[in-house]
Amino acid sequence: MAINRQDVLTSAIRVLDEVGLPDLTMRRVAGDLGVAPGALYWHIPNKQSLLAAIADTILADPALAAAASKSRMRWDRQLAGYAHALRTVLRRHRDGAEVVSAALASRLGSGGLHDSIAGIAAGAGAKPTDAHAAAVTMVHFVVGFTFEEQTRELLDRAGATAGETDQLGTDRAFADGVDLIVDGLRTRIPG
Amino acid sequence: MAINRQDVLTSAIRVLDEVGLPDLTMRRVAGDLGVAPGALYWHIPNKQSLLAAIADTILADPALAAAASKSRMRWDRQLAGYAHALRTVLRRHRDGAEVVSAALASRLGSGGLHDSIAGIAAGAGAKPTDAHAAAVTMVHFVVGFTFEEQTRELLDRAGATAGETDQLGTDRAFADGVDLIVDGLRTRIPG
Repeated sequence: MAINRQDVLTSAIRVLDEVGLPDLTMRRVAGDLGVAPGALYWHIPNKQSLLAAIADTILADPALAAAASKSRMRWDRQLAGYAHALRTVLRRHRDGAEVVSAALASRLGSGGLHDSIAGIAAGAGAKPTDAHAAAVTMVHFVVGFTFEEQTRELLDRAGATAGETDQLGTDRAFADGVDLIVDGLRTRIPG
Repeated sequence: MAINRQDVLTSAIRVLDEVGLPDLTMRRVAGDLGVAPGALYWHIPNKQSLLAAIADTILADPALAAAASKSRMRWDRQLAGYAHALRTVLRRHRDGAEVVSAALASRLGSGGLHDSIAGIAAGAGAKPTDAHAAAVTMVHFVVGFTFEEQTRELLDRAGATAGETDQLGTDRAFADGVDLIVDGLRTRIPG
């Protein structure tokens, strides 16, 4: 069977959702596709590139693109909406936040996240350095918050955490953090 | 040889600095101490608890305590100083940010971080919910930023990243993010 890059990514995300990031291997993806591991390497050279490509696929979710393009909305609501959409999209996949975090660290993928946020900030009149700072801060907050949330959910299922999760409290804490960063950016916007 | 909890932690941090988080196992710590693995479990029941205890030990660094206690400094400078000290302290240990991130996610350790930041914010007159939001946001930003930084350094050493690291630019991006969060909190402080 001839496989293309899209087949590899579809299969990789299926494996991720099934077994989680620690058990996601090139060998396992090949097994899911029913091909020899060597057939994968023509499309994806190594695990680092695989993670970057998975991250880009996760972030290609239409919900995120929709949030980025609501340009008739006020910038502060648009930015907050984008942050909330990002958390939602990361949570759609097992270990989604960790995958995106790894891709960002390797700088092989997911640069579009920062561009989208910096674009919203620049559209509101922020200087490039301030728009960049807002993007870096927001992405770390959303990805870090969601990574912690997904880790905790995993540990909860394993019965390994100290306390119970308060979902309403978690949602509110997330919204409060987003609003704080939006208000920080607001102090840099003229007028 | 009789070992105590402190011996276990000292050895665990030595192993962490030497081999990194992925290879940090109870067995390896026992080997470093020259005892049977069973001897460890009396002090530390499992790896999750070990990570939490290592995180608490990393964060017990005097530099961080000093930054938290500079109460004669203006709150904004004190909060920024604490964030910078946290990054410095995390970077003193291999995978330091990832260890603290794991400990925070399990809620078994490192709650002191949030208390210190919320304390600075409350001292400045912030309401408890705003002080909490500032703490959550700042900790995610600093830990996330440093985690990404340490991951990238590791990949750079392995020759696996796409670009070169610009240390000055990285430091400036960190400072800009901290300032943005401080300014966000400032909008919630009366007067």
